[in-house]
Amino acid sequence: MLAPDFKKMGGLVPVIVQDAESGEVLMLAYMNEEAWKKTLETGKAHYFSRSRQKIWLKGESSGHIQEVKEILIDCDADTVLLKVKQYGKAACHTGYRSCFYRRLKDGSVEIVSEKIFDPEEVYGRKSA
Amino acid sequence: MLAPDFKKMGGLVPVIVQDAESGEVLMLAYMNEEAWKKTLETGKAHYFSRSRQKIWLKGESSGHIQEVKEILIDCDADTVLLKVKQYGKAACHTGYRSCFYRRLKDGSVEIVSEKIFDPEEVYGRKSA
Repeated sequence: MLAPDFKKMGGLVPVIVQDAESGEVLMLAYMNEEAWKKTLETGKAHYFSRSRQKIWLKGESSGHIQEVKEILIDCDADTVLLKVKQYGKAACHTGYRSCFYRRLKDGSVEIVSEKIFDPEEVYGRKSA
Repeated sequence: MLAPDFKKMGGLVPVIVQDAESGEVLMLAYMNEEAWKKTLETGKAHYFSRSRQKIWLKGESSGHIQEVKEILIDCDADTVLLKVKQYGKAACHTGYRSCFYRRLKDGSVEIVSEKIFDPEEVYGRKSA
């Protein structure tokens, strides 16, 4: 069965996450083989966190899970494209709908995505 | 000025390439800092080829260049999203419109992107 080639990048493949309805690109994350298998088994997007070095169910803290609608693999089998239903309407930990909320234009930055939630309310206030 | 963080992945950042009009995800490539600067300067997508270890103007062989319409950067500044006009109507070296032409469904593979050109006609026949 066709599966991503995890060897190319030290056990990880990049995963592009796109809203299945609107086509908006929501985020890029990484999967190792275990995250890939859990995603196939559960139909919920699981990733591998490079900073925490562990498997991560997207939405495990926020409740904003991603229900997988389609899985595509690229020509070299080294990138995955997930089309998802994003619960909570926001994929980004900053509260924006998409992680790609900043557009560069003529040397300045425009905010181009909608802010859906306040991260402090969802993840709790960081202690000082 | 906001720019990608090239330190995180050994000098490279992944770049998601999306058709500016249709929203279709066409490919994923990588940029180093030089490819990023050339892209900004010329308005044409330049990438860094990991296999050939060199800067690459997308379309330099095929003529299928990508005119950059929008540049977005994600929350961690470690991924770029380019919205482009794809000349020649196909991004993939296999001749498909998108590199993500294979969809996994119930253990089998469906072809879901249109084949636009014959790679042998565009890149020449490989000698035996």
